[in-house]
Amino acid sequence: MRSEELKNIVLADIGNTHFHIYDGKRVEHLNYSDAIEKYRDEKLYYISVKHQLSSKIEQIKEWKNISSFIRIKGEYETMGVDRKALCLSHENGVFIDAGSAITVDIVKDGIYQGGFIFPGIKAMLESYRTISPALDTQLNPDISLEQLPATTKDGISYGIIASIKTLIEKHKDKKRLYFTGGDGKLLAGFFRDAIYDDTLVFQGILKVLQ
Amino acid sequence: MRSEELKNIVLADIGNTHFHIYDGKRVEHLNYSDAIEKYRDEKLYYISVKHQLSSKIEQIKEWKNISSFIRIKGEYETMGVDRKALCLSHENGVFIDAGSAITVDIVKDGIYQGGFIFPGIKAMLESYRTISPALDTQLNPDISLEQLPATTKDGISYGIIASIKTLIEKHKDKKRLYFTGGDGKLLAGFFRDAIYDDTLVFQGILKVLQ
Repeated sequence: MRSEELKNIVLADIGNTHFHIYDGKRVEHLNYSDAIEKYRDEKLYYISVKHQLSSKIEQIKEWKNISSFIRIKGEYETMGVDRKALCLSHENGVFIDAGSAITVDIVKDGIYQGGFIFPGIKAMLESYRTISPALDTQLNPDISLEQLPATTKDGISYGIIASIKTLIEKHKDKKRLYFTGGDGKLLAGFFRDAIYDDTLVFQGILKVLQ
Repeated sequence: MRSEELKNIVLADIGNTHFHIYDGKRVEHLNYSDAIEKYRDEKLYYISVKHQLSSKIEQIKEWKNISSFIRIKGEYETMGVDRKALCLSHENGVFIDAGSAITVDIVKDGIYQGGFIFPGIKAMLESYRTISPALDTQLNPDISLEQLPATTKDGISYGIIASIKTLIEKHKDKKRLYFTGGDGKLLAGFFRDAIYDDTLVFQGILKVLQ
């Protein structure tokens, strides 16, 4: 597809909780019904991991599901299409999508090497909450990772952030870290030289379409 | 208290989901109502983090709450009494209680240094499940931590186990690792020279009582 044609097409990444919509300039995050209402008459290409929405969205005439075109060498069968698109954005790197889940994927010379999944920060906090009222707390976004925590709130914040950070660093080697997703900016802040960019998934999609 | 007297006393550690009862030989895990039914007429000392049960249990004449005696130098105000008892079991070590939550605590020369908290393995799996049906899976207990996962099940199992392991190892230094709790044996299996012992909390309590 030529760049000229792509200019008039809106891209959407339909995730577990929201639509992420890219008009070539910025990314907009909308809930399902707002996104459908606002864009139903526009020419839109989408990828989706929200299979429960499929039958509803397939009825929209102007929209086209391009999920099946998004492929990366080394991918595994049930790999989410948003992860593939993210991994296609650069030839080398560690790609972290910190949304409702946090996926960490490693790409070397354009070939997918493997990856792992954490629950998202919100889901983690909810998880502590269901275990015991004593563990019902908020994340301390300024948690120090240099010293051992000595309160429940810090012990939980450290458990979430330090475990994610330590495991990502173990796999970093000399690769760049690319963050995207709702908590991507927050997490990127705990690393040196990490790149946060909420258009990465769309950059991957555009590479495929061009 | 003399060892003679202690011989006739049953100890209980009342956790978020179960009673753990120690008769001096072995540990029995019972749900709340079974434990109360079975032991209500026996002389029993208990510690408890299940505050919702307090009013019910305080009515049992033969039982005595010894939580307030369980103290460790360096403790913080809201630290769970079961964690304190566990940390009292040895003068030095990293103490991991892998139950409904997973607590990791560091003790040096009998002084508490700090610690952190993960959701338990069951809570983690439930957390993935609530994010998306695509993430509804079981733990692969034989997950290899030596290679990057390439399936959703392994990506999740790795996310849980490798993050816990990597962060514990970061704090191990030359200390011993002591595991207890329902998933303690499973987790200990991922480390060299880790000690699993389901009586550790009770050893800590006995040190205080003696």
